[in-house]
This record gives sequence, structure tokens and C-alpha cells, in this order.
Amino acid sequence: MPLKTQEEFIASLRDGRNVYYNGERVTDVTTHPVLSIFVNHWSLIYKAKHDPKVKDIFVKRLDEYGEASAYFNIPRNADDLLARAKLIEATTAYCNGQFNIAQAIGTDALFALMSICSEVDKRYGTRYYQNVLRFYDRCVREDLAMAVAQTDVKGDRSKRPHEQDDPDAYVHIVERRSDGIVVRGAKVHTTGTQAVNEIIVLPTRNMLAEDRDYAVAFAIPANDKNVKIISRAQASKELGEFDYPMSVKATAQETLTVFDDVFVPNERIFLAGEYEYAGALARLFALWHRFTAISYKPPIGDQLLGAAALIAEYNGISKYPHVRSKIVKLIRYVETIRACIRAAAVEHKVYPAGIAVPNPVYVYIGKYHLADNFHDAAKTVQDLAGGLVITQPTTRDLENPETAKYIEKYLKTRHDVPAKNRLKVLNYIRDLTASTYTGGYNYVLSVHGEGSLEAQIISTYTEYDVDRCVRYVKSLLNIE
Amino acid sequence: MPLKTQEEFIASLRDGRNVYYNGERVTDVTTHPVLSIFVNHWSLIYKAKHDPKVKDIFVKRLDEYGEASAYFNIPRNADDLLARAKLIEATTAYCNGQFNIAQAIGTDALFALMSICSEVDKRYGTRYYQNVLRFYDRCVREDLAMAVAQTDVKGDRSKRPHEQDDPDAYVHIVERRSDGIVVRGAKVHTTGTQAVNEIIVLPTRNMLAEDRDYAVAFAIPANDKNVKIISRAQASKELGEFDYPMSVKATAQETLTVFDDVFVPNERIFLAGEYEYAGALARLFALWHRFTAISYKPPIGDQLLGAAALIAEYNGISKYPHVRSKIVKLIRYVETIRACIRAAAVEHKVYPAGIAVPNPVYVYIGKYHLADNFHDAAKTVQDLAGGLVITQPTTRDLENPETAKYIEKYLKTRHDVPAKNRLKVLNYIRDLTASTYTGGYNYVLSVHGEGSLEAQIISTYTEYDVDRCVRYVKSLLNIE
Amino acid sequence: MPLKTQEEFIASLRDGRNVYYNGERVTDVTTHPVLSIFVNHWSLIYKAKHDPKVKDIFVKRLDEYGEASAYFNIPRNADDLLARAKLIEATTAYCNGQFNIAQAIGTDALFALMSICSEVDKRYGTRYYQNVLRFYDRCVREDLAMAVAQTDVKGDRSKRPHEQDDPDAYVHIVERRSDGIVVRGAKVHTTGTQAVNEIIVLPTRNMLAEDRDYAVAFAIPANDKNVKIISRAQASKELGEFDYPMSVKATAQETLTVFDDVFVPNERIFLAGEYEYAGALARLFALWHRFTAISYKPPIGDQLLGAAALIAEYNGISKYPHVRSKIVKLIRYVETIRACIRAAAVEHKVYPAGIAVPNPVYVYIGKYHLADNFHDAAKTVQDLAGGLVITQPTTRDLENPETAKYIEKYLKTRHDVPAKNRLKVLNYIRDLTASTYTGGYNYVLSVHGEGSLEAQIISTYTEYDVDRCVRYVKSLLNIE
Amino acid sequence: MPLKTQEEFIASLRDGRNVYYNGERVTDVTTHPVLSIFVNHWSLIYKAKHDPKVKDIFVKRLDEYGEASAYFNIPRNADDLLARAKLIEATTAYCNGQFNIAQAIGTDALFALMSICSEVDKRYGTRYYQNVLRFYDRCVREDLAMAVAQTDVKGDRSKRPHEQDDPDAYVHIVERRSDGIVVRGAKVHTTGTQAVNEIIVLPTRNMLAEDRDYAVAFAIPANDKNVKIISRAQASKELGEFDYPMSVKATAQETLTVFDDVFVPNERIFLAGEYEYAGALARLFALWHRFTAISYKPPIGDQLLGAAALIAEYNGISKYPHVRSKIVKLIRYVETIRACIRAAAVEHKVYPAGIAVPNPVYVYIGKYHLADNFHDAAKTVQDLAGGLVITQPTTRDLENPETAKYIEKYLKTRHDVPAKNRLKVLNYIRDLTASTYTGGYNYVLSVHGEGSLEAQIISTYTEYDVDRCVRYVKSLLNIE
Repeated sequence: MPLKTQEEFIASLRDGRNVYYNGERVTDVTTHPVLSIFVNHWSLIYKAKHDPKVKDIFVKRLDEYGEASAYFNIPRNADDLLARAKLIEATTAYCNGQFNIAQAIGTDALFALMSICSEVDKRYGTRYYQNVLRFYDRCVREDLAMAVAQTDVKGDRSKRPHEQDDPDAYVHIVERRSDGIVVRGAKVHTTGTQAVNEIIVLPTRNMLAEDRDYAVAFAIPANDKNVKIISRAQASKELGEFDYPMSVKATAQETLTVFDDVFVPNERIFLAGEYEYAGALARLFALWHRFTAISYKPPIGDQLLGAAALIAEYNGISKYPHVRSKIVKLIRYVETIRACIRAAAVEHKVYPAGIAVPNPVYVYIGKYHLADNFHDAAKTVQDLAGGLVITQPTTRDLENPETAKYIEKYLKTRHDVPAKNRLKVLNYIRDLTASTYTGGYNYVLSVHGEGSLEAQIISTYTEYDVDRCVRYVKSLLNIE
Repeated sequence: MPLKTQEEFIASLRDGRNVYYNGERVTDVTTHPVLSIFVNHWSLIYKAKHDPKVKDIFVKRLDEYGEASAYFNIPRNADDLLARAKLIEATTAYCNGQFNIAQAIGTDALFALMSICSEVDKRYGTRYYQNVLRFYDRCVREDLAMAVAQTDVKGDRSKRPHEQDDPDAYVHIVERRSDGIVVRGAKVHTTGTQAVNEIIVLPTRNMLAEDRDYAVAFAIPANDKNVKIISRAQASKELGEFDYPMSVKATAQETLTVFDDVFVPNERIFLAGEYEYAGALARLFALWHRFTAISYKPPIGDQLLGAAALIAEYNGISKYPHVRSKIVKLIRYVETIRACIRAAAVEHKVYPAGIAVPNPVYVYIGKYHLADNFHDAAKTVQDLAGGLVITQPTTRDLENPETAKYIEKYLKTRHDVPAKNRLKVLNYIRDLTASTYTGGYNYVLSVHGEGSLEAQIISTYTEYDVDRCVRYVKSLLNIE
Repeated sequence: MPLKTQEEFIASLRDGRNVYYNGERVTDVTTHPVLSIFVNHWSLIYKAKHDPKVKDIFVKRLDEYGEASAYFNIPRNADDLLARAKLIEATTAYCNGQFNIAQAIGTDALFALMSICSEVDKRYGTRYYQNVLRFYDRCVREDLAMAVAQTDVKGDRSKRPHEQDDPDAYVHIVERRSDGIVVRGAKVHTTGTQAVNEIIVLPTRNMLAEDRDYAVAFAIPANDKNVKIISRAQASKELGEFDYPMSVKATAQETLTVFDDVFVPNERIFLAGEYEYAGALARLFALWHRFTAISYKPPIGDQLLGAAALIAEYNGISKYPHVRSKIVKLIRYVETIRACIRAAAVEHKVYPAGIAVPNPVYVYIGKYHLADNFHDAAKTVQDLAGGLVITQPTTRDLENPETAKYIEKYLKTRHDVPAKNRLKVLNYIRDLTASTYTGGYNYVLSVHGEGSLEAQIISTYTEYDVDRCVRYVKSLLNIE
Repeated sequence: MPLKTQEEFIASLRDGRNVYYNGERVTDVTTHPVLSIFVNHWSLIYKAKHDPKVKDIFVKRLDEYGEASAYFNIPRNADDLLARAKLIEATTAYCNGQFNIAQAIGTDALFALMSICSEVDKRYGTRYYQNVLRFYDRCVREDLAMAVAQTDVKGDRSKRPHEQDDPDAYVHIVERRSDGIVVRGAKVHTTGTQAVNEIIVLPTRNMLAEDRDYAVAFAIPANDKNVKIISRAQASKELGEFDYPMSVKATAQETLTVFDDVFVPNERIFLAGEYEYAGALARLFALWHRFTAISYKPPIGDQLLGAAALIAEYNGISKYPHVRSKIVKLIRYVETIRACIRAAAVEHKVYPAGIAVPNPVYVYIGKYHLADNFHDAAKTVQDLAGGLVITQPTTRDLENPETAKYIEKYLKTRHDVPAKNRLKVLNYIRDLTASTYTGGYNYVLSVHGEGSLEAQIISTYTEYDVDRCVRYVKSLLNIE
């Protein structure tokens, strides 16, 4: 049966991988005081699959495999896409309100590879599609977690890959052997690398003939000896749960992933020089992954909304018209995202390999909306919460009887709400919108995760049939 | 067969109705120089039903009736709702880019009445539901056009209906007879009254027991002798098609509809005193009608988008990044509306009488979005068009050879685009965004049509399950 | 004494000028049914100078001239700039709430010419500065009205002047004679040409050596036989004052101004080939004129604000928190403009010829602010006014006793406010924000008048010392 | 001579004050590992007064005192106000880019007290004005730092002070003695209490006769034995300067300030029961202090702008149009604040006691602008910086040769910019916009510091002469 337990998953990460954190080599990510927070967070989807409360969402019977992770279900229609969005939403909700893409991002890549590789093979007689299917089969059977390394470090942004001073500014093939290829370079912003089993590597942009060696896609085990994982942590247990309820557990982790002459055997190669497909593959993965993005975000919006409503109640202002108006602004924030999910699913398109792909326009406007308005949503929550978000005493002041008596007396608003509960919510808002690990991370994530604002604009322009509207206007005006 | 022709529909309006326009009683709206523009506009849906290009959208085989107007199809599921939205979109597109709700708004009211009246009857043993069905049957069989009169004049807004100085500030029952009721009052903003067959009257708000006589709903023929229709026209043929391509034909018309002691026979009464249901009926109709609103708007957005892209091309600026970015802003404007339509359909709820009702939250945020951003969208089009929108010479200057030579020489940008085409598009943009009848009307319509911005905010707050989010946050923080 | 009366000014326009309007040559603009509206509007500043209520603002004692139009006062310090802004504000207020730049725009040009020409002369030994001073002297003594023709028609916008297929796409010198030059081309968007005495022509952009013949500035009487004035009217008396209180009188007028081989004598030439100064002159005039723009706009903002507050009062909603919040949004809209005026004056810079020039950054952000938010301000007024703005009956319905009785009964809200007053304010709002001549014109004017949004962005970037901030950050981080 | 040195100021804080921090009583704030960061920050204005580079801004010769802190200069005209604004700006710039109000907030309070107390005395024959002058005299002569404690903890916000369940929810007089009064209660959000010499206490709102005992204002030394200062720190040296260049030094500190039956001698009382003046005093202080707010903010805006421009340059994208457009958005953000300062100074009003008070409308719209748009400004900086802001390795990874080689190779963009400098700027942006102590603090500070968004709206509505605009519209429409 292809469903790993949480413990089995954690054990699978003790495999000698090269992880570095804060100046040190980490020999065991599962026990490291900081990195283990993330490992535990990432492992929660394995717990969910065995949790009777949510199992029906996380587990799906797949034809050839029996019960498997629902992430591996290949979407064939709108309902499959809506179910996938619901699964991704449920994952955030289950994982203490922070996103978890341990199996989402990998399947995003696999679905994109299936559609593109079947086309490449048709044109070039390559066997990439079969490689993808075989790799997919292993991931399902072993219930693997995957990271996707896509964003190259890029060097001078005004130059194409082959024009760079440093040829390694984009990951590329440095040697072609009969049994495989050797690759070199580095990828930034790889989410979760230190807590997955496999890394899927994809090109980050379109390529020209001269960029041939940069048109490369493959999968590599996370513990490959020449893969170096330099990790940035977005959590700290030292902060304490009362003051930082999110940052102590609900976390993300990105890495600088270095490929220091990594050998990739033939059966793990998905693209190796067919430069005409590099852009299509990059874009199709981006589309899938942005669908994941608009699906994992709503529960974070729910938190902003819930926190705003709760603190307004505790502050005794929930009946004021301006407060209601602000709550509704938050509703619009989160539900516009959900509307885009629905539209993207309903208006999907079936791609080669029979995969139902979400509608790109709704995905990109959803992603743009969430990115462009997150800061404003956070502002609204802070607005309703009040200045105590940053000025309230710490949990240790509450433990010191000398100060506790004042805090309990003076920071209480309604007699039916203990000061401690109000402070809890204020701390939560501080952590969610005004702290380093969760708040600060969320602000930047919203803007840059899954492509910047500018990237959404360009992608939308590319995908939209503007000419349809021009023709309509011309017909109204009798212009040929 | 219940499909009227365009001519039959127009003929049906010559029935002696009491229409007033610009200080005069109009004896025949179908030949009046101004009002006939609207009659013609409203009649286009009857043309569409016989137009092979669009017939499959406008006509639907209904069980008991055979081929009928697709507007009468009672939605039972998401697909029916999506088809209705598509029909309403297609109607705007077909009607020269201006909305036409000759059968949309009436069916909005009928669907709302079906759900509510079946409930009223259950509680009170009344027979309203049967009245509604019988009226619906007639409308389908005779392929009637309907207006809905809902917004009362309201008098002093801080007082309830029964508290008003003038008891007629809300439409109410002034006499109850064995064979029917007599009603008095006036409704504002009734769209299309002078070009429909029937007027459906609904309450505008929730009522208390003291407001009992104001809780009244019924249908009345538009030519009832005590119904006075004071019409405001949003079109003028005198403007000339070149200078005002929209205002000469694509139009709307609203009326102050006065009920000067109108007798309503029993079988046409849908509510008459059951005040507890007045609010529910008002709200359910509003929900249906706002779904119509978000469905008729996208082709207007398409026009803004198409006009912007076309004039940018004519002006030679379409490759500039800021221009593309503005085009994408317009895409987001219109497609966010379409996303809300999809979400409202997918997340529908089945109401009494087995009717699938659109999800209110997505309807209201869609309506709010279109209202709150229309002015900004118009600004963007003007921004790309340039100042000539308001400063270009008129068509008559183009006909005067003395000036025409200068205009043709100097107002040309690209050698492959005749100056005349550029001016045509500039005039179109002027008419669409900066003229009295179309532009000015559109601005205010976007804000107030189907309920103001504030109304959407209140409705969203009422409908949304904020507490779900509060519970989620409490669970994350272990607060009971 | 250099102060003309209103009648003298109007008489001065009967001079055989070549004005075309709506397909016809207009022989006398002062009696033409449409153009005379504008003539009358433009003449109001001459009335103001003799109106004891405002004379102290409009008239100033100038050293060499005695009492003269205050517009001709050359700013030497912050107080002079503040007085000029106050004068321009007062002009709008005095002229029925619509801007009037009959002497503002010309002095904008003259101040710019004084600063630039003194520099050109220094470098080239030309005598342009003296020409400017002599022309200024005449304008003051004869109290002339002036238009400024700057915006060329531009042809293909991706090409420079000398590269155009049609060499006349920018106004240029086609012949140099001993006694002067002959110029050809056309300018768009010239405000008020048909109601001024003199036209000042300025270059619209920076030029290269090859564009030498396009680097031309001069003044020409409006009745020059080879100047053709094709006029667009923004007013109509036919609309009626009750329904369109603004459009019947408070108006603007722009022209396509054609220079069909116009001879300019030497003493009226201000630039003729010194291409290095074309850009500086264009920009400095733009700066002065945008200062005029931010100065004439506040009374229009006051109207939006006053109309919003008044209709809210009539509608009985002025105490609602959301209404107050919207009123405050309008206050912020207009007072941010006024704040920029103050800052631009206080932070002025003294230019060659000893002229105090407003600070460009505050001028451009003020202009951007008013342009970017005007539509939103109009939306807010419409939001508070309600749908009657577009659906209320016309004045003629009020004159018809059959309908008047209903209108007076039903469109009344508060017993102390006659329905007629409420309708007056609603019509005013319609005219101001939703009509062709005033509303539509205002929307586009706000965006494009005195340079587009993009122009403000580029100008701001050019003028701002971004590097000051970069150096500050580097100093904080010890980066060299 | 009244100019203390930095060392003397620091020494003056070793006075046995009751400070609590993170669960512990702090016996010496000047040596405490965390609180000393703030002490050092606050002491910088004393350094500035002796620093020849900035002395002319920070020091002013005052009639009776000779050279004194320029903060004590009582504004008499626009120039004085502009100089004060410049002084406050310069203070932020001098203090590592974080605001420092060690003498600003206290003088804000003193100027407000001077104007109000002279009025109270006139009405009641009290001698508060003399008390204020005497206290001011001491502050000048001893060059004291002051905190202002205004915001009461408020308990149930729907109740007035005297209606609260806990009578101590607002600070109030619990005993009146011949030699003074005894007060009880607590104030939140008091900035800098642990590093000042004196605390000035002011009422937070208007009061009724029943609230008489709550209408109290006075000054008390920070080391009074019954004053308990519970401090929240916004800095930490442990974070390391490379990763958190701001949070290690540029900091704020707020306190919950408890008055546990504090005795105030008669000569230190400024209001004690004259409830009619409580609101006016609260508002006038708020006005002064918001003028301080709009004055201390621009250098923070300069940092956002400089950081954005610098990282864009390092990222090689500074020439892109969308980047320039975003830089200009940041210019508008910060310069609109500066425009409001200028306008507030120019349009000041002279109050009782001959003090020139900034124009409230410009102050409040400036404050609203900075608050409403700060999050968006931060978003723009993050947008230009890229995802590395949150994903880059830490300084310790740069010190580990194993990882340093990869970081230096791969995180470099331009060959003339060392990777380390790029990382420095990215860290700075992270700290400024996405960290707990500086970024998170700044977000909430912008919204709530010196009054919330809603407070600015209400204050603007109260101060603005809306009726002037209504009258103008009525005059245009001939409505009486």
C-alpha cells in the first residue's frame, strides 16, 4: 500500500543528505533544533492520510495503486481540479495554517512534464514521457515527497544563459555520457529541499538554440552526494508559543540548491537539449504551481479574517459600521481568490496526455490578486487590532506576579474575556503580520512566491485573447 | 409555439399604456422618435431567437412548452446557471454592447417568487405559489417581456414604511376587496417599463407587523389605466452615429412608475400582508438580479478592453510596457467578474421549489468589484486613447472639405490606418466613457444598478459565515 | 490703464479670425450660438477685474504699468507663487466653477520663455529675451488673452520629428527670410484659441540637431490669415439650465490649430533652430502650466465635495459613518492638491531672469494625484447621490402638471426640502460627473490636461534626486 | 548652559526608576543588554547637539536661555514650524533612520498645554499656565527628555470613563489634598518612558461633568516610586548586524505605564477637574503630535525609496519602465507627506499664548496618507528586491568556507557588485519591511502611531469646513 506513515516519512530523511544551515553542516535534519520544526511541519500530510477526520480528502483510490496520496490523482476534468484545490486548501488548514506543498509542487511538475514530454517525444523520438511515467510510478508507490528546483540564480539579468560571464549562472549540462548527463549550477528559492525525497529540476525560461545545454529537466534524490542544500529557516522554537504561536511551528523553508557536477542517469532525464520546449515546460509548471498557490492561500486569508473578527469582538468594536466594512474587505480578499479557483477549474483545457489543465487567465489574476492585496489585508487586521499588537508585554511579564496583576487588570476589555485570551489573539496577529518568521515571510511570499507581480502581468497578457475584444469593437463600429 | 417575432413584440406595445416623456404623454412608444430607440433595443432579444447564429443560446426546449425563450428555463444545477449567465452575456453582446434585461429581470423575480411563495403558502395556507406558476406559464406561452418595480421612493430614509409622513412613500395596499386589492405608491428606477408587457412589483426591504400593508407583491399589465410611466431616456438619434455610435442605439431607459390606486385581481397577487417574508423576497430577488448584473457586464468590459487595445494600436503605443500593463488591468477587471459568475454557479444552493440559486457571496463580491472599479477601467481606456477623445473635430468637420483636408492630414498616425477609423474609435471611447447617454449612464449604473456599493457590503456581511473563520483561529490558539 | 472691460475684450475678438465649428466657418465667434458661450465664459476674468468683490485678487499694481491684470505679475518668491495659485483658484470659482486660463496659460508660457531665452541669448547672442519682454509688455498694456499651442499632432510616435513620413507632423520652419520665418504644421488640444488675442507656439519635446527646424517658438495674432482654428465645443445652450446647469455656461473649448505657411516676423520669434533648448523650454512651460493645473482644480474638487455633502443631507443620510468617511475621502482628494500647491511654492527655485519657479516634484505629484483620483472622486459623489442622478425625470416633466404632481409627491425626501431643490442638485451632479460636455470632458481633462499620467511619472523620475536616498541607505549600511 | 552631553543624559537615567522588562525588574536601564539599545538610541539627540555637522539644526539660541535644544523653540510663525519639521526629520536621519521623539513629544504636549491652560485659567482663575511655564523652564534649563502618557487602557469602549465597571480604566484623581492630588490608572503605548526624565500625563478624550476626576493632566518624574514602567522592546543585539542592520540599534520602545496611587504636588498639575477642556487638550496635543509624526516619517520613506533604487540597480533592472514607475510611486508616497508638512506650516493658525499651530486638515491627511500607504510602499520595495529577501542564507553561511564559495559565486549579479553588498541590502530590506523588531513594528506603527486611520477620518471631518463647499454649490445653483 502506497501510504507512508508520518514516522516512516521522517525516517526516510535520515539519508546522509548535504544540508547546511546557519554556518554549519547538519547531519540529521530530523533532530536539528531548528530544521526539525520544518521536517515536522512537512510530515503533517503523512499524518493527515491516516487521520480519520480528513482521510477522505487526503487519500484517493487510484486505479493501479489502490489507496494512494490524493495528490497523485491526475486531473481529467473540472471536478478533479476542484478536488485538488480542496485538497491543497485542506492541507494548509491541517498544517496549523501554513502552506505545505510536500507533494503538491512535485505533482505540479509531474503533470507539466507529462503534457510536454509526450510532445517532445512525438517530435524527437525521445523517451522522456516514459521516464516521467516511471518516476511518477515510483513516487506514488513509495509515497514520496518532492521539491522542485526551478529558479536559476540568473547572474546578469539582461543576458541569456549562454551569454553570461559565468556559464554556471543557469543550471546546465557540462558533460553528456552514454549512461547520463552531468549538470552544474544552482537554483534559488527551492521550497522544502531538506525535507523531501526527490528533487525535480526544471528550466526557468524559454531558450534559444545556443542555450541548448541549459534546456534540461530531471529528477535527483535529495541525498545525492553532489547536491548541496543551503537552507534558510523561517521558524524558531526559542520565541515561545504564547508570543509567537505561528513561528514556533507553522513554517516554511527555502534553500539555495547547488548542483556541483551532479550525475543524472538516463532514466531520470526529462529534457536534455530540446530547447524549443524549455519555455513551454517552464510556463506549464508555473501554471500548475500557481493553481497550487491560489489553492493554498485561502486558509491564510481565513486566518486574517478570523483574527480580525475575533479581535474586533474582544475590543468591543464589532458592531461599528467601519469595522464591518473592513471585515467585508477581508471577505472579498479571500473569496476573490476562491472564485478564481472555481473559474480556473470550470474553464480548464485538456492538454496532451489527457490532462485537464486549469485556465491560465483565472489562475494568474487570482495569483495577482492575492499578491497585490496581501499587505493591505494585513494592514486591515492590524487596524482592527490596535497598537497593542506591538506594545503589549511579553508572556514572561504575565508570569511575573509583580507585573501580571497590572496586565490582567488593565489590558482587559470585556469582563467575559480574560486579558490572556485577548493577548493571545494580539500575539497571533503580531506573529501573522508583524514578525520575522511568519509575518515578514508571508509578505514577501505573497509578492514573489510562484512568480512576481510583473510575471503575472506578462503571463496574463500572453495568455489572454485580447484580439477577441478588438474584433468585437471593430464589428460594433464596422471597421474591417 | 411560444416564440414571438421582433415585429409581434413591438406590436404588442401599442396598447394604450400611459407613458410620459420629457413633458408629454406618448401615445405610441414604438414610433416616438426617442422612445422607439429603446423599444427597438429591447426588441432585439426577439430577433435573436430567430437568428440562426445565436438561436441555440437564446432558445431552449422546455418540457411542457417545446421551444421557448431560454430565459424561462428554471435553473436546477450549476450547468443551468452557467448557461443562464452565458445567455445574459450573449444578450448584451447581441444588443450592440448594451445590456438588455427584457426577459432576464422578470425571470429573476419569478425564480425568487417561486422559492419564497412556496414557503409562504406552507405557513399560511395561501395560494401564492400557484399564482406565480400560472403567471409564469402565461409569460412563457406568450413570450412576454417584463419589468420589475422594486425600489420605493422611500421618503425619509430614517423611518420605516408605516412611520412616514406620507403613507404612500412605499407602495402599499389601500383597499382589500374580495376579488383583489387596490395599491398606491410609486417605484423609481424601473428599467424598461415602457417596452414590456407586464410589470412585476416586489417589496424593497424587510417589514415589521406594522408595515403589513406594505408587504405586497403582484403583477400588473403595463397598460393598466392607473399605472403611469414617467420615462427617462438614455439615447438620442440626433447625436449622429459617427460622433455617438452607442448613444444613437444602444440604450437603457428607466421610469418613475406610479401606481395611482391600481386594482390587482386575486390571481395576480404574490404577497399581500405576510410581512415576515417581505425581506426574504426582496433579498432573494436582489440575489438573482445581481447574478444577472454580473452576467450582463462582461461584454461591456470587453468593449473597454477592445477599445483600449485598438486605440493603443492606432496610436502606435501598443508595445510599451505601461500600455500592456494597463491592458492587463482591464483584463483583470472583466475576468474577475467572470470568475465570480463561475464560482456563484458552482457553489450554488438548492432552494425550496427545487431551484438552484447562485452563491450570494460570489455574486455580491462580483457586483461590488464591477461597481467599485468601473470608473477606474474607464479612466484606463481614456488614458490610452489620449486627449483627442474630447478635443477631436466632429463628423461635420470631416464633411466640410475646407477642414477635412487638415483633419485627414494631421489626425493620422499610422499610414495604414485612415484618420477616419482612428476618429471612429476615439468617438466610440468618448461615447462609452465620456458622454451623457452611454458614458454618464454607465458610470452611475455601475455604482447603483442592482444595489449600491454599501448594499453589497451589507449583503456580503449578512451572508458570509465569518464565524467559521473565528472558530478556525480559536482552534489554532486553543481558545474555547 | 491696462485693464480691459469685458465688453472691450469681447469686441476684440471680432477680427476676421478663421474659426471653423461643426462643419462651418464661423464669422463672428461672439455671436455664434454655441461658441459665444465659451467667449462669454472666457471673458469673465475681464469682468472680475472690475468687480469690487474680487478685484483685489485679480488686479495688481505693477511697477511700470500701474493697475494691471494680476496674471502678469512675475513671481519672485514663495508669496508671489501662493498669490498666483490663489488667483487661479479664484478664477475657477468666479467662472461658475469651470477653469478659465485666458491669461494664465499665456503667462505660464511667458515666464518659461523669459528663463530659457535669456540662456539661449547668452550662448548664441540671439535677441529672443528682448522679443519676449517686448511681447510681454504689449500683453500687459493691452491686457490681452493668450492661447498656447504646444502639442504637435506627432504622426508616428516611434519616430522623431525629422524622421516622420509627413514632415509636417510637427510644426516646423519651412522658410527662413530676412524679416522672419514661415512655419507649417498643426497643434492639437489648444485651449481657447477662438477667444484669445494671441497664440504663443512652443515646441512639444526635446530635439536633436537634425530636428533643428522643429525647434521653434513664437507668437502670432489669432486672426492671422493662415492660422485655421478648428474648434470643438464643450457646451450647449439647448440642454437647458435646470437639467444641465454647468453645460449651458461653464465650458471649455479646444482646437486643432493649423499653421498653413504662417509668416512670423523676427520680433515675434522666441526660438528658431536652437534645438538644444527645445526640450528645456517644453519642460519649463509644462511645469508652469501644471502649477496652473493644480491651482485651477481645487474649486472643481470643492464642487464635488459640496455636492456630495448637500445631496447626502437632502437624502437624509449625512450622519451615517460610511457617508462621513466618503466625505472625508473627497476632502483628502482636494486638499492633497492644495497641499502640493503650498509645497511647490515654498520649495521653489529661482531661475535665470530672477523668476521663482514652483518645485517640479510637488507640482507633478499634485497633478498625478488629481488625475489619478478624479474618476474615483466622481464615483464617490454618485455613490452618495443615488441612481436618480440618471433616472430622474426632466425639467419638462416638472412643467407638465400631469406628471409634476407625481414628481413633487414622490421625489421628495425631507419635508423641509422641496423636491425641486433635490432634483436641481441631482441634475448638477449628473452634469458634473455624467454628462457629455461637463462630466465627460472633466474625466478626460483630468487624465490628459497638462500631460498624461505617464508624463507625470516620467517627469517626476527625471526631476527627483533619487540618488540622495541611495546615498543615505549606503551610509546606513557602510557601503561605499 | 542648558545643553546636556550624551553621557550626562545617560547618567541621568540611573535614578532607581521602576522598570520591568520580559518578566524581570530592571535595576539599571543603561546597562541592560536589551533596554540599553534603546537608551543609546534615545541619547543620540544629545550627541547631535554637540556634533558640528548638525548642531545648527539641533541647537537654537533662545532669548532667556542662550543655546538650548531647538525642540524648545516655541513656534510663532510658518518658518518656525518648517524649522521644527526639519529638526524632527533630521533627528530620524541622524538616529540611524528610526524616529526619536525624546524631546519632540514632550514639547508637543507643552505647546498644547500652554494654549489650553491659558484659557482654563482665564475661565476658572486657576494657575495652570504658570505651572506649565515653570515646568517648561525646568525642561529647557536641564535639557530634559520627556515621555507623554495619553492613551488610557479604556476597558469597555462603549462606556464613558465614569461608567466603567473598573473605575481605574482611565487615569483619575482618587484623592485631593491641600498640597496636591493622588492619581490611579494606567496608560498604554507610552513611547520611551524608561529613557526619559519626566512623564507628562494628558487626558485621552473629551469628558462630561460626571467624568470630572478623569480630566487630569500633570507631570511626574519617571522615577516616582509609584510609577511602574512595563516595557516592550523593539530591538535585539543577538540578531547580528549583518542580518538585521536596523533591529540591532535603531529601535523604539513602548510601555504600559501604571500609576499606582501616585502623588502629584500642586505645582505639577495642569488640569484637575476642568472637564470641559479635557477634549480640547487631548485634541490639540494630538494635532501637535501628528505634526511630529508626519515630520519624522519622511526619512523612513527615504530609506524605502533608496533601498528600492539600490537593489534595483544591484539586480540589474533599474532601467525597466515598470521599475521606474514603482520608484516614482515611492517618491509620491514620501513627498506627499512632505507636501502636507509644508501646507500645514504655511496655513497655520495662531492660538492663545501666541503659538503658531499647524493646520489640522493638512496634518491629518498627511498622517492618513502615510498610514494608509505604508504597507503598499513596503510591498513595492519587496517587489523590486525579489524573493531572496526571505530566502538568502545567513551571515554565518557566508563565514563558513564550504557554503561561502557557493554563495559568492551564485548570488552575485553584476561583476562590479560583490555578492556581500547585495546581501547587505537584501538583509536591510528584510529588516526594514519583514522582520519583527523593525519591519513588523513599522507596519503597526504606521497604522496606529499618533491615532488610527479612523481617528484621522473623524478628526478631518470635524476640522474641515464642509459647509463652505455646500454654500458654494448652493450659490452656483441659486438654492438658498
